[in-house]
Amino acid sequence: MRTIDWVNGAVEIIDQTALPGEERILRLHTVGELIAAIQSLAVRGAPALGVAGAFGVALASRVHLDDPAALDLAVQRIETARPTAVNLARGARRAAALIPHGPEAVLAEARAVRDEEIAASAAMARLGADLVAELCGEERPRLLTHCNTGGLAAVTVGTALGVVGELHRRGRLAGVIASETRPLLQGARLTSWELTRWGVEHRVAVDSAGPFLMARGEVDAVILGADRICANGDVINKIGTYSHALGAHRAGIPFLVVAPESTVDRDTPSGTDVEIEDRGSAEVTAWSEAVNPAFDITPYDLVTAIVTDRRVIRVDRGEKP
Amino acid sequence: MRTIDWVNGAVEIIDQTALPGEERILRLHTVGELIAAIQSLAVRGAPALGVAGAFGVALASRVHLDDPAALDLAVQRIETARPTAVNLARGARRAAALIPHGPEAVLAEARAVRDEEIAASAAMARLGADLVAELCGEERPRLLTHCNTGGLAAVTVGTALGVVGELHRRGRLAGVIASETRPLLQGARLTSWELTRWGVEHRVAVDSAGPFLMARGEVDAVILGADRICANGDVINKIGTYSHALGAHRAGIPFLVVAPESTVDRDTPSGTDVEIEDRGSAEVTAWSEAVNPAFDITPYDLVTAIVTDRRVIRVDRGEKP
Repeated sequence: MRTIDWVNGAVEIIDQTALPGEERILRLHTVGELIAAIQSLAVRGAPALGVAGAFGVALASRVHLDDPAALDLAVQRIETARPTAVNLARGARRAAALIPHGPEAVLAEARAVRDEEIAASAAMARLGADLVAELCGEERPRLLTHCNTGGLAAVTVGTALGVVGELHRRGRLAGVIASETRPLLQGARLTSWELTRWGVEHRVAVDSAGPFLMARGEVDAVILGADRICANGDVINKIGTYSHALGAHRAGIPFLVVAPESTVDRDTPSGTDVEIEDRGSAEVTAWSEAVNPAFDITPYDLVTAIVTDRRVIRVDRGEKP
Repeated sequence: MRTIDWVNGAVEIIDQTALPGEERILRLHTVGELIAAIQSLAVRGAPALGVAGAFGVALASRVHLDDPAALDLAVQRIETARPTAVNLARGARRAAALIPHGPEAVLAEARAVRDEEIAASAAMARLGADLVAELCGEERPRLLTHCNTGGLAAVTVGTALGVVGELHRRGRLAGVIASETRPLLQGARLTSWELTRWGVEHRVAVDSAGPFLMARGEVDAVILGADRICANGDVINKIGTYSHALGAHRAGIPFLVVAPESTVDRDTPSGTDVEIEDRGSAEVTAWSEAVNPAFDITPYDLVTAIVTDRRVIRVDRGEKP
């Protein structure tokens, strides 16, 4: 199944805002419809956004065949529909470079972007599965993933979730914890939906439980995607990624980022140079079985002080309750 | 306002599951009703649970006046209604110790538990506000808190949120980020409701945004409560506390725990000796303005490896994209 494609003169996507309740296909005929789908997250995921950007330019090049100024503006609007993932603007620019050769050439380039993302997913699945096997040894690892990095995010197989699927096929996976990924629950809604289809054993956890589950020894490695990878190796990804990284570091388990080359941005020196998108809050429902510890344990060496009704205990200076 | 009290022969609580939509008072006449209220989190928060446990024994001592075996069983059921907070069992046992002296003596002891928690809150507010002023200097600090530690959790003023209120009264507070506290949103629902009543400027953030907001320099200190504090200083608190501690440690900002002495458990050597409650998942809605960065920045030194379609970049070995 392709989660984004060009079909009979329009862009077809599976509407990710309707999952897992409904598998609804949206046909996008105009640049305006495409941008609305991108901004509402009906299509999301860095690789899928690259393909959406390229197909968007293909749409624009047909509509504005005789109006280069309008076409330029449409390309700009597509490139900037969301600021953080580098793939969107890249996919759009690649297709736009073919505009002088006519709409069919633009469409052919957009299809090439799509095909390259499909091939990239397959390659990442192999490389990633080999690496997990190397780092986690002979045991079947228990992995924690964040947000959605499956076929929904990348046309067919996905990035980090593609690795998960490959390990499952190899019989080298014990199970997955999908962190729910507030506020829009891409983990609870989308990753859980894909893993159920693939027959992969999994549980959903609230995001903030991830580091604690690692500390409790329930996770052998963290594996997730990226929206942009900076020149110094800083990784820009869904809110919550940094928390999981802190947890993995403290637990001494691998923290693996799986993303196509198209996500690497050598022109951006470090993460602080990237515009971080702020979005509004959203309504939420939980759709899945969950692992739900109601509390966690904070080791004392992370505590500065404890204030009671009688004392200030400066734990950071070695004082004990 | 007392959020839990003994009124005309029954326990009255404000139903925390109905907030912020509705301010509903529940009258609990039986031990069964009280335990149901504890387990549904209609009453929650370590100090409030201590008071609930004591009043629960007062209820039981009236009903089972002539049946010591039934009374014993009722006390046990109250003590074990929730396993993690030490206060619940402590409050129940304190009241139960007076059973030989009759129901009125039990009730008087339960009222003493309540009054001590009220006094403890006032003392913590002063000590905590002084400490924040000391650690954060002359500037008005921006604080991040987790879950709910206000009057709802502790009869009147609260623990960590009591400190927040005291700083606000002193004119020494710039604002608060309330992390929403999945899955039951005590931060988004209860803390936000209390801060609004107090006129304290605040924003809600998804839990996993906490460490990132700290890394971005938007938080001067983390301040939160505890359900149990172990002999070595390990802190047991709402899921997500550990993530915030990791974030604060990395950002080099104070991580402050505010809890009454009744929360300190010297009989438990460390956090790993505490039973951590696992609960089911829940439906959620967002009620408040939110600060909502959709991504975060993971510094490269926390990344083990990046897998692309062509390479495995071992960032942990100094390799760069």
